[in-house]
Amino acid sequence: MGPRRFDADVYAHRLSEAAATTAAAGLDGLVITPGDDLRYLVGSRAQTFERLTALVVPAFGEPSMVVPRLELASLRESAVSELVLPVWDWVDGDDPYQLVVAALGGAPATCAVAESMPALHLLPLAAALGVTPVLATGVLGGLRMIKDTAEIDTLRQAGAAIDRVHARVPQLLAPGRTEADVAADIADAIVAEGHSEVAFVIVGSGPNSADPHHECSDRTLQVGDVVVVDIGGACEPGYHSDSTRTYSIGEPEAQVAQQYSTLQRAQRAAVGAVRPGVTAEQVDAAARDVLADAGLAEYFVHRTGHGIGLAVHEEPYIVAGNKLPLAAGMAFSIEPGIYFPGRWGARIEDIVVVTQDGAMCVNNRPHELIVVPA
Amino acid sequence: MGPRRFDADVYAHRLSEAAATTAAAGLDGLVITPGDDLRYLVGSRAQTFERLTALVVPAFGEPSMVVPRLELASLRESAVSELVLPVWDWVDGDDPYQLVVAALGGAPATCAVAESMPALHLLPLAAALGVTPVLATGVLGGLRMIKDTAEIDTLRQAGAAIDRVHARVPQLLAPGRTEADVAADIADAIVAEGHSEVAFVIVGSGPNSADPHHECSDRTLQVGDVVVVDIGGACEPGYHSDSTRTYSIGEPEAQVAQQYSTLQRAQRAAVGAVRPGVTAEQVDAAARDVLADAGLAEYFVHRTGHGIGLAVHEEPYIVAGNKLPLAAGMAFSIEPGIYFPGRWGARIEDIVVVTQDGAMCVNNRPHELIVVPA
Repeated sequence: MGPRRFDADVYAHRLSEAAATTAAAGLDGLVITPGDDLRYLVGSRAQTFERLTALVVPAFGEPSMVVPRLELASLRESAVSELVLPVWDWVDGDDPYQLVVAALGGAPATCAVAESMPALHLLPLAAALGVTPVLATGVLGGLRMIKDTAEIDTLRQAGAAIDRVHARVPQLLAPGRTEADVAADIADAIVAEGHSEVAFVIVGSGPNSADPHHECSDRTLQVGDVVVVDIGGACEPGYHSDSTRTYSIGEPEAQVAQQYSTLQRAQRAAVGAVRPGVTAEQVDAAARDVLADAGLAEYFVHRTGHGIGLAVHEEPYIVAGNKLPLAAGMAFSIEPGIYFPGRWGARIEDIVVVTQDGAMCVNNRPHELIVVPA
Repeated sequence: MGPRRFDADVYAHRLSEAAATTAAAGLDGLVITPGDDLRYLVGSRAQTFERLTALVVPAFGEPSMVVPRLELASLRESAVSELVLPVWDWVDGDDPYQLVVAALGGAPATCAVAESMPALHLLPLAAALGVTPVLATGVLGGLRMIKDTAEIDTLRQAGAAIDRVHARVPQLLAPGRTEADVAADIADAIVAEGHSEVAFVIVGSGPNSADPHHECSDRTLQVGDVVVVDIGGACEPGYHSDSTRTYSIGEPEAQVAQQYSTLQRAQRAAVGAVRPGVTAEQVDAAARDVLADAGLAEYFVHRTGHGIGLAVHEEPYIVAGNKLPLAAGMAFSIEPGIYFPGRWGARIEDIVVVTQDGAMCVNNRPHELIVVPA
């Protein structure tokens, strides 16, 4: 699956930190099934579903892996060998949940599991443990949220790559082409500009720009369209880009231009609010207040942003109700949008990293409504 | 996402059956997050993760959907509109788990959830319900396991398509090509022969054939290699093919030929054991006993098969310990294998559908070790 950027020392440090935060939270252990957390902790991209693969991290004691014997070879694609972790392998017919209990050193009083653990494993695991687990978000989220220097470098590299893709977008937005045509070219450009994989490509034109979760369609671009382009990919070892710019094919109507400029102020206000100690919901409110003052509150129908890293969406979420204080090293999107159903919509999105005294944007393309000559 | 093959009447019938089996199991309701179960029940291919989307099916009462407002438009890609299901939409900051409780008609005493529901939703849902859910496998597995005529037709169509791909494989296995070269051609052929998507392509040559979960590598094919080719795709509206044949580049060694013929007998014995009333584990034993009699038991390191349909792997699992009696309409793989680490391995896999008095194979390529002229 390609070269790994981080060495065993990095993973050993993360495992040790995970055990420490688990202990500090008063939990007896962590059980991590395939997904981003497993990738973060031991570099594994395992994707097993119905056969249990799990990293078991006791709060005090040695971490180990529970792995179907069939999947032992796939451990070579992770840092498990370099870390010299003990492996409990099992075959069809065995009870792997009892192996997890043993790997925890016996039934724990409390235990945390990865957010992505499916019910298929969580419910029998809870039965084997004799206790309902809690989410590991609290103990891992804190580690994963604070990016180290290598992670920030990769996020910046991904951000620069997606900026280069946005620089190519105006020439792709020719009237008569379909959203799907444009999206296919953008997907090629995402890889050509240095990502190892495409994560998503949203091209919403005309009325489709008013649907924040539109992906792309066979709609043909027309003069006068507003076009939302929200794109991202991953750079090795798996850190994501995610940036949105809004384009206008030909000059926009005056009201579009005016409402867009309010959105631009809202996005800038939220970026300006970012610094250590400010809460996530205060950043959300900074964008929302600008739109509310202009009577546009009801057209901003989603949160202001999401954390980003090995997952496209992860902690911290920049949303009302999230009282988490920001800290240096956190990385997340700032992406307010306004949506007028059936008519048009716009969104502006940068990824920012919290610094000691503010925010560093990893995206640096102009924020204006970009007018493409018709 | 392409045309749907099943109409609203089919989904309405499935919802009604799901409510009936839920009631019969003494449960108060079902909560189904995105995945195969949601696709089976309402035709939705939603893939939301951190924002809760859920189909709620009370044992007695009206089914409904809980959907983030952002995702309302995506319901058009499902049968939810034609079914005229009530929709409870929510926005960031709301508590969607309380909506699920309301959609169930108040906190239930017992409730079942989809196998794929992530801990991220299952744990807060359990807290909102005040009860630990159980897996919906028992109530949905029985419905999904028994394929109707349209589903069986689609499985046969997919089986015929993958047979046509296997017919092309010998000409692809030229010494000097890499496994990855061959896999790329096979992926193209899977689509060219009528699948709407590629599900997986395993090409394990030489010592890689001895790793049952090898995918493919840059290893170059050599004269004398045994090559395991295990491939599958999906045909609209999402039913899978999955078939394995084993090839030899040049004439095999005598011992390989002899051990392979034992495997072929084992596979035939398992297919021959299939009929209504026989248990899943008896079919597994039918293959395993043939291999054990030849002293090869320890080289057969996995179960004999898995159910197939909207998921590549689903109930029923053909494995020791599964006392489920087979019934007409069940579809699953019969795929014993033998693996000699570092040397060679082989596997033979057909999908069979249980009939009134036996088994119908949807795959019909020859089962012999296929010798490719070197």
